Amino acid sequence: MIKFKIILNILGKLLVGESFFLFLSLLVSLIYGESDSLAFVKAGGITFVAGALSYLLSKGVTKELGKREGYIIVSLVWIVFSIFGCLPYLFSGAIPSVTNAFFETMSGFTTTGSSVLNNIEELPHGILFWRSLTQWMGGMGIIVMFLAILPTLGIGGRELFVAEVPGPAPDKLTPRIKETARNLWGLYIMFTLVETIMLFAGGMTFFDALNHSLTTMATGGYSTKQASVGFFTSPYLQYVIIFFMFVAGTNFTLSYAAISGRFGKMFKDEEFRFYGIVVFLFALIISFGLMSVGNITGEQAFRDSLFTVVSIITTTGYATADYLLWSPFLGMLIFVLFFVGGSAGSTGGGVKVVRILLLFKNSFYELKRLVHPNAVIPIRYNRHVVDQKTVTNILAFFVFYILIFMVSSVCMSLWTSDIYSAFSAVATTLGNIGPGFGEIGPMENFYNLPSLAKWFLSFLMLLGRLELFTVLILFSPSFWKH
Amino acid sequence: MIKFKIILNILGKLLVGESFFLFLSLLVSLIYGESDSLAFVKAGGITFVAGALSYLLSKGVTKELGKREGYIIVSLVWIVFSIFGCLPYLFSGAIPSVTNAFFETMSGFTTTGSSVLNNIEELPHGILFWRSLTQWMGGMGIIVMFLAILPTLGIGGRELFVAEVPGPAPDKLTPRIKETARNLWGLYIMFTLVETIMLFAGGMTFFDALNHSLTTMATGGYSTKQASVGFFTSPYLQYVIIFFMFVAGTNFTLSYAAISGRFGKMFKDEEFRFYGIVVFLFALIISFGLMSVGNITGEQAFRDSLFTVVSIITTTGYATADYLLWSPFLGMLIFVLFFVGGSAGSTGGGVKVVRILLLFKNSFYELKRLVHPNAVIPIRYNRHVVDQKTVTNILAFFVFYILIFMVSSVCMSLWTSDIYSAFSAVATTLGNIGPGFGEIGPMENFYNLPSLAKWFLSFLMLLGRLELFTVLILFSPSFWKH
Repeated sequence: MIKFKIILNILGKLLVGESFFLFLSLLVSLIYGESDSLAFVKAGGITFVAGALSYLLSKGVTKELGKREGYIIVSLVWIVFSIFGCLPYLFSGAIPSVTNAFFETMSGFTTTGSSVLNNIEELPHGILFWRSLTQWMGGMGIIVMFLAILPTLGIGGRELFVAEVPGPAPDKLTPRIKETARNLWGLYIMFTLVETIMLFAGGMTFFDALNHSLTTMATGGYSTKQASVGFFTSPYLQYVIIFFMFVAGTNFTLSYAAISGRFGKMFKDEEFRFYGIVVFLFALIISFGLMSVGNITGEQAFRDSLFTVVSIITTTGYATADYLLWSPFLGMLIFVLFFVGGSAGSTGGGVKVVRILLLFKNSFYELKRLVHPNAVIPIRYNRHVVDQKTVTNILAFFVFYILIFMVSSVCMSLWTSDIYSAFSAVATTLGNIGPGFGEIGPMENFYNLPSLAKWFLSFLMLLGRLELFTVLILFSPSFWKH
Repeated sequence: MIKFKIILNILGKLLVGESFFLFLSLLVSLIYGESDSLAFVKAGGITFVAGALSYLLSKGVTKELGKREGYIIVSLVWIVFSIFGCLPYLFSGAIPSVTNAFFETMSGFTTTGSSVLNNIEELPHGILFWRSLTQWMGGMGIIVMFLAILPTLGIGGRELFVAEVPGPAPDKLTPRIKETARNLWGLYIMFTLVETIMLFAGGMTFFDALNHSLTTMATGGYSTKQASVGFFTSPYLQYVIIFFMFVAGTNFTLSYAAISGRFGKMFKDEEFRFYGIVVFLFALIISFGLMSVGNITGEQAFRDSLFTVVSIITTTGYATADYLLWSPFLGMLIFVLFFVGGSAGSTGGGVKVVRILLLFKNSFYELKRLVHPNAVIPIRYNRHVVDQKTVTNILAFFVFYILIFMVSSVCMSLWTSDIYSAFSAVATTLGNIGPGFGEIGPMENFYNLPSLAKWFLSFLMLLGRLELFTVLILFSPSFWKH
């Protein structure tokens, strides 16, 4: 039997937590004295009451949390948070349609960054702050966040942690989940603050600096400008953002080591090296490609290409250049990056660098195995043998990813004007990136898609953010049988 | 040490075999009394002499054939056959460019069916017959063909057979390779003859009937008409071709059982059922899609969609309708079929139905495994447990397929005007299908691509035809180390 009461109990606590962030946005709104304050009072109030009621109704529940409850809670929390999180948009009239508001919120929490907004600059500051905040909350994981701050969530925390952070992250299962969560969040907050200061020092307003830092570190990609980061033409600002996007796509454990002076650990890590090489190589090739067309300085070409490569591989989705205008070859290189994603243990989404790396390794080892069919040839990663179960899981993940990509593209093609846009809409939402190709390029948005398509893509964002299995498992009949 | 002498010896024998088929085409040319006779005399002569010399130079060679020699021979024979096989095009002036002639021949032997020809109806009969014949020879496999007819190839035949037919075909490793090869070829010839008679009876000229039968049963797709099968508007003729394409994409072992009256075996086979369901469902959906647009009768819509679905899934590549004109949704359904392919043990190429089926199964079992992490849950196929090695191999195949698809698409985008055409050119050649999307749609051809692109695509055809590993293994350093 699945214990629904404990699910209600934990969701209640988490909702109360969400209301806190809504009230934080109310504060911003009050500071600017804009019309959206009432919307935050209402949204925050409703969320708080709903949370408190759920908690009180399920009080005195047994504290034992099973694996299955863990999966259900994690999948549900992202949906419930999006339902309550879209209230400010609706109440303030910033996004009047329920579909659009939900899409924008789910795109926020999952750090996808696909937007339906055409008038970003006209929105009140509180709304824009809330929009950035959804990404920041989702960046490190909603559960991970509350594991760090709520005292009583620690019981059963392991189950929740595993369900929300399913990737093959090294060191993820330390005995002290709570401490891990706190360390991650400490680093996350510190990076956000440092970036804010650096952007502010470079001439951004404090509000823009803070918002862009929130969405950079979450690899989210929401901007306070319709033209995204392209609005800020200062090379300094763009390089700062490139640097922090790159950091956000790096395993936080490695960043921690680097900050503690242990640079060796960072540069010996296979995933980090692979990630660095891919970024460098792709940026280099694209730079030359852009320069060969002319009409651009070497520095600008390098900056545009590096920005785009880092933005896409980390699944942030900021734009400074419109890659749809590039040659097919350069566009194709960008499209390939849609299927890489950030490092494990980072806030980046997608397939993840370590999975790609192990897929490559396994493939080349398979050739060795064909030559020597009787030899046992295990895969090594960071000097350790990778056990067969991990390899099988990564292979299954990749196959699922491709199958879901194909089937979803078929569905999406019902709603787009060409195959190309359908593929890219699925790739960008499933990979939590943001912009796509065709109709939904970096200078376009998702506003014109039909409602059904938006609900469908919202689901794909969730699927991608929770790395497939946590959501898919809920559709498996054996999950519900007992 | 790799025994190069035995490789030369076997290639020599096989080349003498190829010259026989060139002389057969000479016969056709003489019957029609056309200008291409001299080209066949020269091409046949050169091929015969080259083969005989290789054979004589390596006479008295030890008969032991290792695994590695098997892989080398199989990869080489397809290249060598294409080099000599393009001579008639060059000598007759039908295709003056070496690049185009090689492309057309490799596309023939690998039964891809992508063409560079713009003037098919103007070509002499001998040339057209040779063009169809390359597909027919390649359909069942060049090695398999000669295993059936040459007496001395039997030694080491197992190594060659495994390297050329690497798929997870049931019953493929009977102790008597030679008998298997003969049975397969007997059935292949019979089907070709029956189809010829049925097409002839429906009003085709005998020449057209024979050529289309040769390329149907090979799932090749070369036609004697520029408009492909669309030239023959008779519904009867189109249904006959649909039927035989479907048969060619079915496991020949099952067809043998069905002909012997054991229909039960056929309908109990999981791969056949899956193949049948996919064809039926896709054809049904596309029929409704075409009818909803109007301007078409129900029968015509059904026939066009069934024809296209069967043509693509079996990797034949004949065309009666231009699917580029269909809606994005219907086009997308066709594109998905580019990644399915025929059944194992058929002449169809691509990923193969059984692999797709096992990938699906493994994915869903992986969900079960996540729910019950300690249970051992093996995959079953046709009531037997599939061992882990087979599953790993299929997963590795799929990952390689996708990796090669992505990397090759990046390369191709250097030579196409859009990403879309690049993807489809790779998908159609790697899957041995024929037509693509965009610039290389079913009513277009490959003539306008640059030379380098044509050589690159020729390589992909070979890679796809030999199901990746046989060719890839030659690029593995451990293959050459000893």
